[in-house]
Amino acid sequence: MATYDLAIRGGTVATGQGAIRCDIGIRDGRIAALAESIPEAARVLDATGLLVIPGGVDSHCHIAQAEANGTRHEESFATASHSAFLGGTTSVVTFIPHVKGSALAPHVADAEAQASRESMMDYAFHQIIADPTEAVLAEIPGLVAKGIRSLKVFLTYEPLHLSDGEFLKVLLAARRNGCLVTVHCENFDAISWRTQALLDAGLTAPKYHAWSRPPVVEREATHRAIALAELVDQPIQVFHVSCAEAAEEIARAQARGLKVWGETCPQYLTLTAADMDRPGFEGAKWMCSPSPRDAAEQGRIWEMIQRGTLGVVSSDHCGFSYEGEAGKAMNGRDAVFRDIPNGIPGLAARMPILFSEGVAKGRIGLDEFVALTSANAARLMGLYPRKGAILPGSDADLVLWDPTRTQTLTNAMMGHAIDYTPFEGLEVTGWPVATLRRGEIVMQDGKVQAEPGSGRFLPRGLYDYIRPTGRLANGFDAAPWPVA
Amino acid sequence: MATYDLAIRGGTVATGQGAIRCDIGIRDGRIAALAESIPEAARVLDATGLLVIPGGVDSHCHIAQAEANGTRHEESFATASHSAFLGGTTSVVTFIPHVKGSALAPHVADAEAQASRESMMDYAFHQIIADPTEAVLAEIPGLVAKGIRSLKVFLTYEPLHLSDGEFLKVLLAARRNGCLVTVHCENFDAISWRTQALLDAGLTAPKYHAWSRPPVVEREATHRAIALAELVDQPIQVFHVSCAEAAEEIARAQARGLKVWGETCPQYLTLTAADMDRPGFEGAKWMCSPSPRDAAEQGRIWEMIQRGTLGVVSSDHCGFSYEGEAGKAMNGRDAVFRDIPNGIPGLAARMPILFSEGVAKGRIGLDEFVALTSANAARLMGLYPRKGAILPGSDADLVLWDPTRTQTLTNAMMGHAIDYTPFEGLEVTGWPVATLRRGEIVMQDGKVQAEPGSGRFLPRGLYDYIRPTGRLANGFDAAPWPVA
Amino acid sequence: MATYDLAIRGGTVATGQGAIRCDIGIRDGRIAALAESIPEAARVLDATGLLVIPGGVDSHCHIAQAEANGTRHEESFATASHSAFLGGTTSVVTFIPHVKGSALAPHVADAEAQASRESMMDYAFHQIIADPTEAVLAEIPGLVAKGIRSLKVFLTYEPLHLSDGEFLKVLLAARRNGCLVTVHCENFDAISWRTQALLDAGLTAPKYHAWSRPPVVEREATHRAIALAELVDQPIQVFHVSCAEAAEEIARAQARGLKVWGETCPQYLTLTAADMDRPGFEGAKWMCSPSPRDAAEQGRIWEMIQRGTLGVVSSDHCGFSYEGEAGKAMNGRDAVFRDIPNGIPGLAARMPILFSEGVAKGRIGLDEFVALTSANAARLMGLYPRKGAILPGSDADLVLWDPTRTQTLTNAMMGHAIDYTPFEGLEVTGWPVATLRRGEIVMQDGKVQAEPGSGRFLPRGLYDYIRPTGRLANGFDAAPWPVA
Amino acid sequence: MATYDLAIRGGTVATGQGAIRCDIGIRDGRIAALAESIPEAARVLDATGLLVIPGGVDSHCHIAQAEANGTRHEESFATASHSAFLGGTTSVVTFIPHVKGSALAPHVADAEAQASRESMMDYAFHQIIADPTEAVLAEIPGLVAKGIRSLKVFLTYEPLHLSDGEFLKVLLAARRNGCLVTVHCENFDAISWRTQALLDAGLTAPKYHAWSRPPVVEREATHRAIALAELVDQPIQVFHVSCAEAAEEIARAQARGLKVWGETCPQYLTLTAADMDRPGFEGAKWMCSPSPRDAAEQGRIWEMIQRGTLGVVSSDHCGFSYEGEAGKAMNGRDAVFRDIPNGIPGLAARMPILFSEGVAKGRIGLDEFVALTSANAARLMGLYPRKGAILPGSDADLVLWDPTRTQTLTNAMMGHAIDYTPFEGLEVTGWPVATLRRGEIVMQDGKVQAEPGSGRFLPRGLYDYIRPTGRLANGFDAAPWPVA
Repeated sequence: MATYDLAIRGGTVATGQGAIRCDIGIRDGRIAALAESIPEAARVLDATGLLVIPGGVDSHCHIAQAEANGTRHEESFATASHSAFLGGTTSVVTFIPHVKGSALAPHVADAEAQASRESMMDYAFHQIIADPTEAVLAEIPGLVAKGIRSLKVFLTYEPLHLSDGEFLKVLLAARRNGCLVTVHCENFDAISWRTQALLDAGLTAPKYHAWSRPPVVEREATHRAIALAELVDQPIQVFHVSCAEAAEEIARAQARGLKVWGETCPQYLTLTAADMDRPGFEGAKWMCSPSPRDAAEQGRIWEMIQRGTLGVVSSDHCGFSYEGEAGKAMNGRDAVFRDIPNGIPGLAARMPILFSEGVAKGRIGLDEFVALTSANAARLMGLYPRKGAILPGSDADLVLWDPTRTQTLTNAMMGHAIDYTPFEGLEVTGWPVATLRRGEIVMQDGKVQAEPGSGRFLPRGLYDYIRPTGRLANGFDAAPWPVA
Repeated sequence: MATYDLAIRGGTVATGQGAIRCDIGIRDGRIAALAESIPEAARVLDATGLLVIPGGVDSHCHIAQAEANGTRHEESFATASHSAFLGGTTSVVTFIPHVKGSALAPHVADAEAQASRESMMDYAFHQIIADPTEAVLAEIPGLVAKGIRSLKVFLTYEPLHLSDGEFLKVLLAARRNGCLVTVHCENFDAISWRTQALLDAGLTAPKYHAWSRPPVVEREATHRAIALAELVDQPIQVFHVSCAEAAEEIARAQARGLKVWGETCPQYLTLTAADMDRPGFEGAKWMCSPSPRDAAEQGRIWEMIQRGTLGVVSSDHCGFSYEGEAGKAMNGRDAVFRDIPNGIPGLAARMPILFSEGVAKGRIGLDEFVALTSANAARLMGLYPRKGAILPGSDADLVLWDPTRTQTLTNAMMGHAIDYTPFEGLEVTGWPVATLRRGEIVMQDGKVQAEPGSGRFLPRGLYDYIRPTGRLANGFDAAPWPVA
Repeated sequence: MATYDLAIRGGTVATGQGAIRCDIGIRDGRIAALAESIPEAARVLDATGLLVIPGGVDSHCHIAQAEANGTRHEESFATASHSAFLGGTTSVVTFIPHVKGSALAPHVADAEAQASRESMMDYAFHQIIADPTEAVLAEIPGLVAKGIRSLKVFLTYEPLHLSDGEFLKVLLAARRNGCLVTVHCENFDAISWRTQALLDAGLTAPKYHAWSRPPVVEREATHRAIALAELVDQPIQVFHVSCAEAAEEIARAQARGLKVWGETCPQYLTLTAADMDRPGFEGAKWMCSPSPRDAAEQGRIWEMIQRGTLGVVSSDHCGFSYEGEAGKAMNGRDAVFRDIPNGIPGLAARMPILFSEGVAKGRIGLDEFVALTSANAARLMGLYPRKGAILPGSDADLVLWDPTRTQTLTNAMMGHAIDYTPFEGLEVTGWPVATLRRGEIVMQDGKVQAEPGSGRFLPRGLYDYIRPTGRLANGFDAAPWPVA
Repeated sequence: MATYDLAIRGGTVATGQGAIRCDIGIRDGRIAALAESIPEAARVLDATGLLVIPGGVDSHCHIAQAEANGTRHEESFATASHSAFLGGTTSVVTFIPHVKGSALAPHVADAEAQASRESMMDYAFHQIIADPTEAVLAEIPGLVAKGIRSLKVFLTYEPLHLSDGEFLKVLLAARRNGCLVTVHCENFDAISWRTQALLDAGLTAPKYHAWSRPPVVEREATHRAIALAELVDQPIQVFHVSCAEAAEEIARAQARGLKVWGETCPQYLTLTAADMDRPGFEGAKWMCSPSPRDAAEQGRIWEMIQRGTLGVVSSDHCGFSYEGEAGKAMNGRDAVFRDIPNGIPGLAARMPILFSEGVAKGRIGLDEFVALTSANAARLMGLYPRKGAILPGSDADLVLWDPTRTQTLTNAMMGHAIDYTPFEGLEVTGWPVATLRRGEIVMQDGKVQAEPGSGRFLPRGLYDYIRPTGRLANGFDAAPWPVA
């Protein structure tokens, strides 16, 4: 009689605290054992020569999101799951939208319906708060009871941006209810002024998006968000940090002992503002907020990852096809930059890019890779150790990763609904060859097999701290990936 | 037939990345499995209600050390092992002395003989370099071949202190041979001047020890050691950091991306210079270098632990009995402070103090406790994941720890050869109730049982990085210790 | 025939770059000569044993200011001039108010009328901008043409506070017109929330004023003001810095090379929040914004003066009598703290306090005293070297200062219209014995003699930089005041 | 009857606190008056269209210095005076050498003889301490009595470098006697190791001088010097700061409130290490210590001047001709870099370069120029306000400076004994057209006229503080030089 449903044998397991040679026994969708050897199992997966890593937790994705204008993001939970599995990600945290003047409940119901019907990945939610009225805030205990435990606020974007007073209301509600607050930090008024000034000057091309929101507007809002959180004593996570001067504000806050955490995304490690400066309207494909900066800034973001200031790398997946009526060109190919939908897809590319640019190039070690792609997000989202860990009792979300395989990224590989990838043509080293979600092989050799609706909602606990991810790769002659 | 020699059941396992409920299966002295349940085992240890943590790795101990004057530290490997097991420590890194004008080999042989004959703990060595002649440096490849992979240098103490030129020679030899360099950072000339000035003024009591070496002399030497290591590109660990201004130099170096690590000790978290100001000669019992500072400085050292700047807490165990001819009063009870042997015992007290002051008081979490007392030292010493980890394949060095038991520390509990403890009377919460060394129960309920000579020499690999230990304990209503 | 109208002989002249023995020749209200000796003059003033310093320039005073509710500050230009002369100040920069919905012109006309009719001091204006409509901003070139070259904005206070977008409009208008922008930096929304929360909790006494606006709300607004000014590339002066964390933002900006300057006031050097915690309603007398902090913060403000980060010490004179219908108790003696008029009088006390606490206690030298009380303000206000300097061609605004005379401050000595001084009972060393305004002796031995309306409007030029004031007093055995 | 011996009329006087239009009356070699007009004088100098600035105080020059090997620097006090006057400098502080094993007295006598016989400039002395024996230190009170009030120590150079213990002795002696200590901060052992390693590798060309002493060795020694001075509480000046990381240590010390000052030199603003990489042996002409760095470092040194961290710009004039037997090639044109005399001439070029690169290019204002070239040095050297000031009673050391005249620097213009200038070919804007020393016109239109021996010894007082020089030039449309 087999003790385990599935055994993974012969792999190098990236435990997050060292890569060791051991077998993994899976039962009932959970990791039941880590052992020197697992002799008996109903089924065996041979991981010889491969890394075994925790399934990715992408804690910042916009999927099937209903927009105030009645449209919905074209990336459905079905297509997103497909993309996620191809790239080694098994859990996501997506957003429940909110529209000024409305209650949260219908938005929640809609998001739950979308996800439960189609998702193959496991999923949790951030609740956006666009309008912190008393009635809206009174809905938060209900959300927490369900396990929705983070409130997302915007300090820019019309009509989402909150005033300081509104933001304080959200921070206080979060504190009373034990939620995390996540923040998009850019100064709305400053961007509005710059944008209008650029348009007035006839500078309308996609590349002027970067001009409209320089690092100082991100630093300002980051410091302000931290200061108000400090006043209220409420933990926050600063989303998608794109520049060192904003990250430095987070580092200062951490040195003061505050619970302030920072996230960055692959786009800030590989893209630059120059990508938006392509002939015609093409540059729109690289438009996201904050804007990608330049090569020097990429280096500084790596330093901030190495120092542990930025502890989570999410995709901020927010896809709009280039073509199509809800796409980048929805307002025409001569649209001014202000009127182009903002965001880029990155669910599938996130982990391969971070492995390649990080581990394979020696900037980070395997432990940091695990921390940045799953463990830290799981902790901060209150999903740890169910997710983000390879420990007895954890969900058997695992990726078999070939650390030496090279690929040139193409949109076809991304498996998403979007008609392009901003990472087209990027060469990466390291690639997921199989993905397991709760013990089930949902992707193997680029083929996804799972039932729509098989993804589970993840009720979240209180945020846990995340530790700085560590600053340094191995010694001076370190191999690109450690072998036990 | 039992699959495992021993199973630990029902405990909360402090894995270093979360405390989880699981069983541990032990075979041939190693951890063979972590599993939701271990049904079959030759012997079972019930850990219900207890934490299971990695056996402590104390990477800074002076044991049975031969002195240049022909004496030997009274703490033998036998008594030290006894003390270590009582306090939850299973591995130590001790020092091979060196005397100017001599080769290293006889010192190595002597240390090996002492340890192999008497040690019950596992052990590794730092090699002190007091005289980096060409002949001495030529012995280093032989040490590395044996697995002795760190060189300890002193920037103070007569006759051990090295000039900058000598220190550079050691750094270069370390770089060529893949060793870590560990450094006692205080400025020799400055202390010599202060000491002489105090003695000239008739200020000779033990308390003037603190006056002779203020924080600035530690900061100066710390910055200098870092600068010279930076010049040569050689990783170093700064030993026993006692004050924030020295720690800040380490933090600055880390932010520059340097491989510079810092260690502190329980004495800098619980003792103060005022302890040396007791009637008569009593204050000598608290004399060590650097000197304990004051309560404010203790708080700053905690901050530096929380920021991850100081990643290892060792004991710097260096015992001299108060009475006795090689003791604190060896030069008489009217000896001037300069002539009193320097150092305090702390092997047994290290982990209980850090648990009590750290975890029980909410300053750090359990993950940090594991990192600070075993995992980080094991990494830095190149012993990981053999030591410092609860993973399949790791040595089954484990401690069953009662997180709620309170004790008032007395010297009798320390089980060492020294006739006093500087921590006498300190109340602690949390206590080791059983210690396993390679799967063998060597301490239970305060009784030690092991064979002298059963401790093993640990050949070390290249230093691994250590990650900052994380900055924050759990959320606002954290229990003193997390339960899965 | 006498060459000079007046000669000051025998004094030690505090030139701002050293205290030297020389005579001063005055003609036509200007300093005509500094010379080793001035043999011939129509009149001679003997300054033997006295310091001769530039007449104070108090660049931040609220005088005869019309309030939106139709009242006017009870301190008139006549009483303020009286007070100023008693304390050694000869020039002020006061505020032209603004009310949302109104043009600037009538406010300007009113302020000019008040000042020209009654002022004995020379005066210039800051223009408050409460409502930067296009029409209002179009009035700025006219102000500049008149010599009104600074715009004051509030980031707190209802209804004065500007949004970030409004603040940006003012910064841009200033940049186009060559004005300085001065800023009251506290976060309006944060204070509003804290205030309401305190009142809701029944915490209404004067002392809760301090609770409603902790340092973090000042730091936040300071950083924000700097960031927006940085975005626009417009110089700003941060008014009345009360705490080191706000000052540190200024220091960081200066180290980045920005034209950002900081001012503090005597209240932040001598008063604390505890002063508001007196029996009954008495504490209202010490209420101003930002709030005085505590003794440790006073020490840090001194450090920020010594480092040169804070280069101007103004009074922020804004008097409300304790009694009386427009006074502190205007809303009754049981008024909640929110409804108590904010501000304290300090025109006469400013220079004696800074001399006593600064020069006499060895915290700053005479050069710094001159810089902080007149020269730097004159430079920043574009009045230098007409004001703030003892140079040929400068207005002969001079104070004969007895550096050794001690006084206990009483309200009677202040000579203002307000019925109390928050500095009552403070002992000071150093006192002005005579004040000259444009060569005329307007105060001698506590008696003021000048014609109402004899003060002149000072058209201002472009702000000049101010240099950091220097960090260190004289050598280790410095006398409290240097003698040539 | 003329009241003044000489009047300077019509100039714009750079007082150090603003540039004003006034006349200067000179009597008995001193400034007797500054006045709106000086009607009567025996002689009149027309300064219309010119700036009048204080004669330069170059507080760091090696002149006619006797070397331990029996040679003497070829720059005599006569030639140096000629060069100084051409460049607007009227006072220097030069060095009295010291040789281990010798008393100070004969060195003092020799230096006094050299200077008194030949100098046309006024002069003061630093006393080098190479060997702080008790006998040597016992000579210091005698030096102080004469007015020699600074002790110069070297932390590098064989055989001049002091150990930390020796340096402490000098600091203590300085403290007891009221002297300043000036320090050459580079780490001797580190440079020795690097040098030997380079030579062993056959890398011997002049350019390897820069490789032998990277910024980190300067930062290390700077921090160490500050730490030891902090321990002893003795003010120090760090000489010739070449890089931002060393300057940053000074800035940190100043922010801690220490009396630590920094100096830099024109070579660190205009030359780079690449200048030493010329064909053949030519690069030797640019060799000095610390080594010039690169263009980015020049920018950072300017920032450190603007922040006020570096308050004095001296020449560190230390000339060795390229040809000749005591010159750069004294050990042959194939000499390894270690054996090439170190130092460059700069007396005449100092002020024109700083004016041109600083004032004319808008990096600093005129006040800063005065502070950096004369006032701050005079204060720190205890010569203020006799030197470095345009005030009644000050020595009438003045320069008439044409701010618009451009010149291309050639060695002939330098008027020194050295056969080259490292600044050959540099274009400068701004030039001294006349130099007055104590009221005497000693240079006019490039012609020097003065008696050898007419220079006076300057007995020095206690160091005075220097204020940070100010951070910012005038507003956004500042003219290159302000006119009253």
